[in-house]
Amino acid sequence: MVGTGCSGTNAYRYGTMREWVLSLTVVLADGTVIKTRQRPRKSSAGYDLTRVFIGSEGTLGLVTEATLKLTVRPQSENVAVASFASIQNAAECVTKVVEAGIPVAGVEILDDVQMKCINASQTTSRQWKESPTIFFKFTGTPSAVKEQISMVQKLAANASGKSFEFARGAEEMKELWSARKQALWSVMAMRRGPEDRVWTTDVAVPMSRLPDIIDATKEDMTKSGLLAGICGHVGDGNFHAIILFNESEKKVAEGVIHRMVKRAVEMEGTVTGEHGVGLVKRDYLAHELGETTVDAMRRLKLAFDPLRLLNCDKVIRTEQPAPGEIKEW
Amino acid sequence: MVGTGCSGTNAYRYGTMREWVLSLTVVLADGTVIKTRQRPRKSSAGYDLTRVFIGSEGTLGLVTEATLKLTVRPQSENVAVASFASIQNAAECVTKVVEAGIPVAGVEILDDVQMKCINASQTTSRQWKESPTIFFKFTGTPSAVKEQISMVQKLAANASGKSFEFARGAEEMKELWSARKQALWSVMAMRRGPEDRVWTTDVAVPMSRLPDIIDATKEDMTKSGLLAGICGHVGDGNFHAIILFNESEKKVAEGVIHRMVKRAVEMEGTVTGEHGVGLVKRDYLAHELGETTVDAMRRLKLAFDPLRLLNCDKVIRTEQPAPGEIKEW
Repeated sequence: MVGTGCSGTNAYRYGTMREWVLSLTVVLADGTVIKTRQRPRKSSAGYDLTRVFIGSEGTLGLVTEATLKLTVRPQSENVAVASFASIQNAAECVTKVVEAGIPVAGVEILDDVQMKCINASQTTSRQWKESPTIFFKFTGTPSAVKEQISMVQKLAANASGKSFEFARGAEEMKELWSARKQALWSVMAMRRGPEDRVWTTDVAVPMSRLPDIIDATKEDMTKSGLLAGICGHVGDGNFHAIILFNESEKKVAEGVIHRMVKRAVEMEGTVTGEHGVGLVKRDYLAHELGETTVDAMRRLKLAFDPLRLLNCDKVIRTEQPAPGEIKEW
Repeated sequence: MVGTGCSGTNAYRYGTMREWVLSLTVVLADGTVIKTRQRPRKSSAGYDLTRVFIGSEGTLGLVTEATLKLTVRPQSENVAVASFASIQNAAECVTKVVEAGIPVAGVEILDDVQMKCINASQTTSRQWKESPTIFFKFTGTPSAVKEQISMVQKLAANASGKSFEFARGAEEMKELWSARKQALWSVMAMRRGPEDRVWTTDVAVPMSRLPDIIDATKEDMTKSGLLAGICGHVGDGNFHAIILFNESEKKVAEGVIHRMVKRAVEMEGTVTGEHGVGLVKRDYLAHELGETTVDAMRRLKLAFDPLRLLNCDKVIRTEQPAPGEIKEW
């Protein structure tokens, strides 16, 4: 969790996981142990070391302890599922929900391919409409949840929603959310044999560009002939691609992902919203942020780990790459 | 704003200002210009340079541009004012509100001295009860705001609240919030002459310790004989002391603040919640965070500004202080 910004679900109301971290205990490369911060909810005492280490993927220090904010379990919660004829209609609905300031606790989109996989894999106990589907989560007092559902239902209908169903009781709530939960596993269940692998990766863009990038990426995926679904944290402009491939299809899968990342950067987006950089996305950073910013990150790395002991050359190359060494854009 | 974590009002629902910053353009000490991040709401692309520069008080680079998240203006808002016999009662009310998960947009406390100053200075158009007072702000749909007010009213009554008033209309809302707005100015208006100065400073503690530290600090302030009020962002465990003093009272004021800061650290708190470190609180950092953490901050400073050109020796001393150089605790 500390390694990525992954929220598991949409972060629209509750913020990303990193915002819930108050302080970290970290072992530095030279063995020094530091605690980044005390535990009040607010502090301006020196530099924000907590956030320096969150998402640094083990390259700056080893996190051995984390202090998190607590929150209150909501009095009431519910789930609704809405299906749409197109991704555009679904995205339009989300935009309206956000513009109305409805404090939904989650807004997740699954595309038609993803819904087909869930039906085919029988990982949930019901059959779903095989069209772009939004999963909403609501929390608050019982009357606030009821009000939010009724507002969202109207907005979904206005956006040419094909169906809207909300749970009546805890069992139905679990059932409705199950498809969202099974997204990844349902694609894994479609493996044709032991040589098949599943590639999951993510990007994020400004919210207004999400329908465009999902559209273009879906078109590219269809052309590729691969089994590839999309699952998105729509309230954050963040989505995941889940692609099934074998060794002979690897180059094709790489091409789809490379173009998805390039598209995200061209839309003022980021090469990864949650998953992190690692080795595969390392050389994309300069395209997203510029070489001077990557160089500033390199200074940070070398300040904390001058001997390059920790996960060396992950996230950023510790030496500036030679001209031509970085992958063609 | 970028220099501090100050939220202007309580951050309970909306988070601190720093959480609203998506990216910064920064000029580094060597003249390099970097942009820390693109503008999606979520990114895991490399180290979090945005948060490295926020709150660095000009010691790591010069911020020339900031990209902020937008939010929706709430459909409806309202304000309520509740007075209590004691700070304990007021704090008890806030704890209950937080425990009930009521998503109030603001919870601000003003102590009896602060309320007296507001009456005496006539900076607002009405006379207030001169007892510890909580100002609540509510936002949401009209029915959600109504529901929140009714829940908070009940909790205030259960905590032996002496009065509870909510606004009926925009004019009353402005009037009720005016005392909160005038807190600082009302103390300034009490200056006995041009030689009088006003010292504002802040600390933060875990929320459960807030009544204890306010209590002890008030007792100390009363003993000091100075005019000194307390104004707190209760939902964050953060409060401000506002002290009127002249040259001959300066040592006494310093003593009050020194003991307040020490108390905060002893309660696992922070030497500053919003105002920042500067020069005055620099030597407190080692007491709060430990010397190894301050040394990690020093590494960060020297990585970005090896020639010590930017606001040198603010926040942290760029050279490790000699034994005995740091103020006695």
